[in-house]
Amino acid sequence: MAHLLSTTCSLDVSSSKKLHFKSINQCSTPNPTCFNMGISFSPLKLSLQSKRSAKYVIRASAVSMSQEARTQNDSGSQQTTDGASTRKKVMVIGGDGYCGWATALHLSNKGYEVAIVDNLIRRLFDDQLGLDSLTPISSIHNRIRRWKSLTGKDIQLFVGDICEFEFLAEAFKSFEPDAVVHFGEQRSAPYSMIDRSRAIYTQHNNVIGTLNVLFAIKEFREECHLVKLGTMGEYGTPNIDIEEGYITITHNGRTDTLPYPKQASSFYHLSKVHDSHNIAFTCKAWGIRATDLNQGVVYGVRTDETAIHEDLVNRLDYDGVFGTALNRFCVQAAVGHPLTVYGKGGQTRGYLDIRDTVQCVEIAIANPAKPGEFRVFNQFTEQFSVNELAALVTKAGQKLGLEVKAISVPNPRVEAEEHYYNAKHTKLIELGLQPHLLSDSLLDSLLNFAVQYKDRVDTKQIMPSVSWKKIGAKPKTVAA
Amino acid sequence: MAHLLSTTCSLDVSSSKKLHFKSINQCSTPNPTCFNMGISFSPLKLSLQSKRSAKYVIRASAVSMSQEARTQNDSGSQQTTDGASTRKKVMVIGGDGYCGWATALHLSNKGYEVAIVDNLIRRLFDDQLGLDSLTPISSIHNRIRRWKSLTGKDIQLFVGDICEFEFLAEAFKSFEPDAVVHFGEQRSAPYSMIDRSRAIYTQHNNVIGTLNVLFAIKEFREECHLVKLGTMGEYGTPNIDIEEGYITITHNGRTDTLPYPKQASSFYHLSKVHDSHNIAFTCKAWGIRATDLNQGVVYGVRTDETAIHEDLVNRLDYDGVFGTALNRFCVQAAVGHPLTVYGKGGQTRGYLDIRDTVQCVEIAIANPAKPGEFRVFNQFTEQFSVNELAALVTKAGQKLGLEVKAISVPNPRVEAEEHYYNAKHTKLIELGLQPHLLSDSLLDSLLNFAVQYKDRVDTKQIMPSVSWKKIGAKPKTVAA
Repeated sequence: MAHLLSTTCSLDVSSSKKLHFKSINQCSTPNPTCFNMGISFSPLKLSLQSKRSAKYVIRASAVSMSQEARTQNDSGSQQTTDGASTRKKVMVIGGDGYCGWATALHLSNKGYEVAIVDNLIRRLFDDQLGLDSLTPISSIHNRIRRWKSLTGKDIQLFVGDICEFEFLAEAFKSFEPDAVVHFGEQRSAPYSMIDRSRAIYTQHNNVIGTLNVLFAIKEFREECHLVKLGTMGEYGTPNIDIEEGYITITHNGRTDTLPYPKQASSFYHLSKVHDSHNIAFTCKAWGIRATDLNQGVVYGVRTDETAIHEDLVNRLDYDGVFGTALNRFCVQAAVGHPLTVYGKGGQTRGYLDIRDTVQCVEIAIANPAKPGEFRVFNQFTEQFSVNELAALVTKAGQKLGLEVKAISVPNPRVEAEEHYYNAKHTKLIELGLQPHLLSDSLLDSLLNFAVQYKDRVDTKQIMPSVSWKKIGAKPKTVAA
Repeated sequence: MAHLLSTTCSLDVSSSKKLHFKSINQCSTPNPTCFNMGISFSPLKLSLQSKRSAKYVIRASAVSMSQEARTQNDSGSQQTTDGASTRKKVMVIGGDGYCGWATALHLSNKGYEVAIVDNLIRRLFDDQLGLDSLTPISSIHNRIRRWKSLTGKDIQLFVGDICEFEFLAEAFKSFEPDAVVHFGEQRSAPYSMIDRSRAIYTQHNNVIGTLNVLFAIKEFREECHLVKLGTMGEYGTPNIDIEEGYITITHNGRTDTLPYPKQASSFYHLSKVHDSHNIAFTCKAWGIRATDLNQGVVYGVRTDETAIHEDLVNRLDYDGVFGTALNRFCVQAAVGHPLTVYGKGGQTRGYLDIRDTVQCVEIAIANPAKPGEFRVFNQFTEQFSVNELAALVTKAGQKLGLEVKAISVPNPRVEAEEHYYNAKHTKLIELGLQPHLLSDSLLDSLLNFAVQYKDRVDTKQIMPSVSWKKIGAKPKTVAA
């Protein structure tokens, strides 16, 4: 897979700014050629003209899948035993979510044959809690149709719950994945701390869903590579360096390399710890090949693929339940809300650009774990404390003429606010990751994005509303 | 609680052999004085005469609960703030099972006020798999009525599923426990490896049940001490010494004490790893006080309390699903079945007598963890390899005139068959545990017990029927 970083991209957006198309008028049949978008295209030859075409040129033409299958340089192609090249099939579970959608498009763009498996419950959470993405997002059906219409690339869709094994089994038997990227979990720590039912839901959904994926691989696709999204939060904040999954310990004169001790600090983070242990066991017992991507906090919203049409735009969460530190700060700066630093602000974590999320997943797929191997990569590019982030956003905001200040609010979590933190993250770099570091220009662009959508901000959703200590057994509704 | 080991036992059985009573004829009301047992007794003064009374004298009289409540020496009593002595209330979840039943009686005998919470599903597993205890066991209702009739001591019973929070909440509000001993989990590694549905059941039942217990403590009994049964199997077989829950690691010049790394090797063992992580978090976040008893393999069947009447007799499992090494070997020896050593037989584990299980739990309750403390004890008394156990049983069997031989059968599990093993187990000893070590005489008595019931053995159930590697997604019935 040495060609990984030298492949050509079949879509190349010359600017990172957003395209403005008319709303689409959908036909009664899902034939992509019947969309009325004010642009001309066909599935085979794409000549995309936006209203602001000078800035948003699609340089490359999309090619048909059959053409792509013959492209040796394509990341998504693989050699079969008879020397023929076929496209690698990747199932993206949770492919309608923040990281999942960006990844599905990226892999599709890179020539992989992609299927999205999702029960769309993340959208229901927003409805139930009265939240909304900063960016207006299209339905998954529209997203996929739009992608097809723009690029000619099919993404298969399986709508259902992986906790229901019959559904998952059918998806496996139908799609026959070579790799499964598993984002399909409840992914918010505050959500898991709202009340007992959400805590139970989070652990049940995440642990049982992952067990089902493992059984599906064992039963139907033994060679399939599981790429599982873990979290850096599994490690907690130990007073020693954090290694990538394992640590070599010398104790009483003997030495062994053991799983790195886990100290998770929410029911969500714990669910990922449980997953890691379960997956490690199945690698050993069944020969499953798995990569656990212990991801840091993701920021940003735009990837090459989501930028080309408003129907493809990714979600951006800024609320107290689903919003993560840097994204939330940018939105706060945009609307003139103080940046909400929890407690002392010395909490230090690993961060990465969403463009690196999609790159890391692709690298993991292109360099699969060996049968029986449980491989762990720490997936982030830089470490920041919350105070450092607040300072960066303040500075960048001021450059843009925004009045930004940071305030400390009572920490709703139970966590160390001043601590040692040094986590290794070399394995993905060694495999070719080229990080997008958090620069002034990136912060400008994220802030501009937030300013662009600031009228959509509901400031009531910004403050933390979930307390780690006050969680109770009774069902709770967060927002009125 | 220094009086713990100096308390008088209100029941004292002079011989370890089994009592033979007539079957009881139960009245329509559960008044213990109406049982016709061929013995005379009252709840206050017990003068128990068995058919073989020469051998089975109950020396001490049972005293009423109100009398016991005034006994300062009683393990189960505690001082209230106004100086009065009250009985400590212990909820035993899973109190109808092998360890749970012995513990419930032991604690009741020691003067604790005991409530059993159990959904009785362990009995259903036997029915579904066509298995049975070597010993005939009475229903939980009969067990409790008999205990009351013999000792005057009440054990409250809540039949229900702790995965249903409403049920658990009612039990908590009604009983108001000072300590909860949580045995209420699916506890067989092979059971968890039968098929997907049993794997999922095991993790769901164990993890969600324990989460509910934690929420019930937080919501209704903040000061309640959780005594949770873990397993030595959480640690796996690392190539370094196993510590009690935590290990101090010096790494790159820095030092921290972290949770001992976990390497469990079945979905059952993994469920206990998940529990440990969840409990540790709630201790930190909510101030829960918890003791995790990482128990070794339990052997034996008779405890002081279960020995006094056949209605109180404990279960003894010898089958390939629920039977554990030493108990199974004794039954195999009794029926002339070869001792089934899995693979090379170098698998080394910690073992303990069930009389030490009940003692350890009592010690943990009498010396509770501090608020916010997650305390881990390794609960076993001796280490043996499977080959060592087979040799001990062979020798003891031959002394009794049994023809015993050991054979190696293909290992149905995935585990190291030759490995380093040195696990610490000093914390319970420091708190006063006086171990019953595996002596010739104990083995004789366990073997004699097996011989006594050998006509009840179904030899078809002895061989391992569950394969770690062959587990599939389809539902499987083990026994025909």
